[in-house]
Amino acid sequence: MHLGGKVSVQSTVVVEDRAALAMAYTPGVARVCSAIADEPELAATYTWVSNAVAVVSDGTAVLGLGDIGPAAAMPVMEGKALLFKKFAGIDAVPICLATQDVDEIIATVTALAPSFGGINLEDISAPRCFEIEDRLRATLDIPVFHDDQHGTAIVTLAALRNAARVVGKALGDLRVVVAGAGASGIAVSKILLSAGVGDIAVSDSKGLIYAGREGLNPVKAGLAEVSNKARLTGSTESALRGADVFVGLSGSSLSREAVGQMAPGAITFLLSNPDPEIHPDLAREHAAVVATGRSDFPNQINNSLAFPGVFRAALDVRASTVTEGMKLAAAEAIAALVGDDLAPDYVIPSQFDERVAPAVAAAVAGQARADGVARRLSRWRAGYRLRSRQGRFLGGGAAPA
Amino acid sequence: MHLGGKVSVQSTVVVEDRAALAMAYTPGVARVCSAIADEPELAATYTWVSNAVAVVSDGTAVLGLGDIGPAAAMPVMEGKALLFKKFAGIDAVPICLATQDVDEIIATVTALAPSFGGINLEDISAPRCFEIEDRLRATLDIPVFHDDQHGTAIVTLAALRNAARVVGKALGDLRVVVAGAGASGIAVSKILLSAGVGDIAVSDSKGLIYAGREGLNPVKAGLAEVSNKARLTGSTESALRGADVFVGLSGSSLSREAVGQMAPGAITFLLSNPDPEIHPDLAREHAAVVATGRSDFPNQINNSLAFPGVFRAALDVRASTVTEGMKLAAAEAIAALVGDDLAPDYVIPSQFDERVAPAVAAAVAGQARADGVARRLSRWRAGYRLRSRQGRFLGGGAAPA
Repeated sequence: MHLGGKVSVQSTVVVEDRAALAMAYTPGVARVCSAIADEPELAATYTWVSNAVAVVSDGTAVLGLGDIGPAAAMPVMEGKALLFKKFAGIDAVPICLATQDVDEIIATVTALAPSFGGINLEDISAPRCFEIEDRLRATLDIPVFHDDQHGTAIVTLAALRNAARVVGKALGDLRVVVAGAGASGIAVSKILLSAGVGDIAVSDSKGLIYAGREGLNPVKAGLAEVSNKARLTGSTESALRGADVFVGLSGSSLSREAVGQMAPGAITFLLSNPDPEIHPDLAREHAAVVATGRSDFPNQINNSLAFPGVFRAALDVRASTVTEGMKLAAAEAIAALVGDDLAPDYVIPSQFDERVAPAVAAAVAGQARADGVARRLSRWRAGYRLRSRQGRFLGGGAAPA
Repeated sequence: MHLGGKVSVQSTVVVEDRAALAMAYTPGVARVCSAIADEPELAATYTWVSNAVAVVSDGTAVLGLGDIGPAAAMPVMEGKALLFKKFAGIDAVPICLATQDVDEIIATVTALAPSFGGINLEDISAPRCFEIEDRLRATLDIPVFHDDQHGTAIVTLAALRNAARVVGKALGDLRVVVAGAGASGIAVSKILLSAGVGDIAVSDSKGLIYAGREGLNPVKAGLAEVSNKARLTGSTESALRGADVFVGLSGSSLSREAVGQMAPGAITFLLSNPDPEIHPDLAREHAAVVATGRSDFPNQINNSLAFPGVFRAALDVRASTVTEGMKLAAAEAIAALVGDDLAPDYVIPSQFDERVAPAVAAAVAGQARADGVARRLSRWRAGYRLRSRQGRFLGGGAAPA
């Protein structure tokens, strides 16, 4: 399946004779270039940029494999590009960088920006990923989205909304323990707080994070200020006594006893891959809802439920950024699709549910407009309609309102 | 034709269910990543990198339009990508950069290098283009090829070889005048000297270039040392008296009288686009062979005769660079295709001649091996065969020996 790679570039126009070539390339293309030079907005209509996303990695945090470098990261980025196309009709280009230097990565992505309508950061290790994303978001006028953070956060929140319904608890009443303060742990904690979850305690390899703990990096220190109200210290498992929710994102293991000490109606999201923190069947002995990152158990929490629709919407409305509101809207849209079929084994739709990307895209596009980050559409729409007509928009995704 | 852009990214594998997705993406892709991490050579087999080329521009010298910036340059780069696919089955990604700083461009391309099997520099203004290419060639272990220089040079040499046959002159006896000392003028002059042309006088906007002329940049000063043996000064036209060949690459105009003063059996290559230096019909009043860059006159000198085959070969043999010998071999291969059909109006094959890319690729691959810049093939071949079988190799191009 991987021989020769998993993506290719194809031309979308037929050029079989001199006349067609003279239109597609010199001299005819000069008219298109001049038009864009005169009116930069036209780039969205007359180039592929408005439908193109760069999937950028430095190869430092690839799957569970860690820092394996850019060449070895490429199969994952190609896979991601494949999913972008399949689920959202987006032209994604896998780009693996020969540098792990924060400034150089930022300079490179900044230089690339005119060629893409959005930037998907992927498999970049924490805490570098936070600074890279923050600085790019501050300077670029296209969406920059670190999927390991926000994709995971969106889908986790969606699953938690429904899991809370299953056990009859309000989000504001939940006490959550998040194991892991890497890219996904930090982002999940932040979105749960944004969504109004009652309290969260987050742990890293040194135990629970609390305000004033020595040696915290700035990101963890910031999180400590707004989490762990009870200022719990010690191990992750110690914090689980009476907790409502466990979210595992650290690759650590969880004992049967620790799950057993959680509150009645416990919810456990065992997201370490490929090995969940505890076997889902064991967790189910006490927990009311169990989710994993795996496709061979119920309730798979998978980024591919979020990023295709988020980027589809961001490109469609030419969003300048992805706001917190757009992420929350994506989570709500995913959760809402479960509807009346809600059950302990069905708190999140399947990644092959064709309703997901269009629903996410519609919700995120609406929120982008509400948040004032959607740009003028008129020029772009011509390009969109054409793409649709050509059948290049293969996946779901919402047409603009 | 340009609405929505002219290229797209497609996946080359079918992923319709969980099992396929688990192979193409997580968790199955981890095995492929680990294999490459253990044996970096495998990247050529299990990723698209071995068939991918970045078409990189900073938008400073786009067609005859000049510095129109990265957004407006994109339609040309997409067109180039289209030609890469059509003529050589290569996956080319159009990349327009938000910087015109030499160091930043070099740093960006260096960072991108692990994602591509070759770099095609395009429409970057002189003399910056020389330094950018030279420094990238010195540090990267994949081919870096500024097509405005070398593509033009290769095809011009191919046409000149045959034009010389038409008029019965040896290359070593030719006195050539090249109007223009930009990217293409410099490269054409260099390759003609490499091929053994007798003497060349090159002019820029200030007139003929000669050793010791004040204010020459280092590239022109270097050229002055090896050209213009008679140390001619003054205007381009003054040098044409008794000259055998005129190559126009500056966008300037050429008078009927100047052509009339050239030697009997004069050859004029009127390559400024879209307006040749003099109307071809007027040039033909005196000149024995006339070529232009246009498709609506005979003898079209067009880069697309060269770059597809050059890159096809470079990727196929995993060349670490493109040598001077490989360029000369490309020119000879193109010229040879004309064969016995040689005529004043047929010194160069048509860009739609399907023999061209395979012939160029075969010659260039052979020369790469002879020059010792071809790398081990065994791993790569598996990938190549698969791509061929999948019909992804759509154009011409030679299978490896």
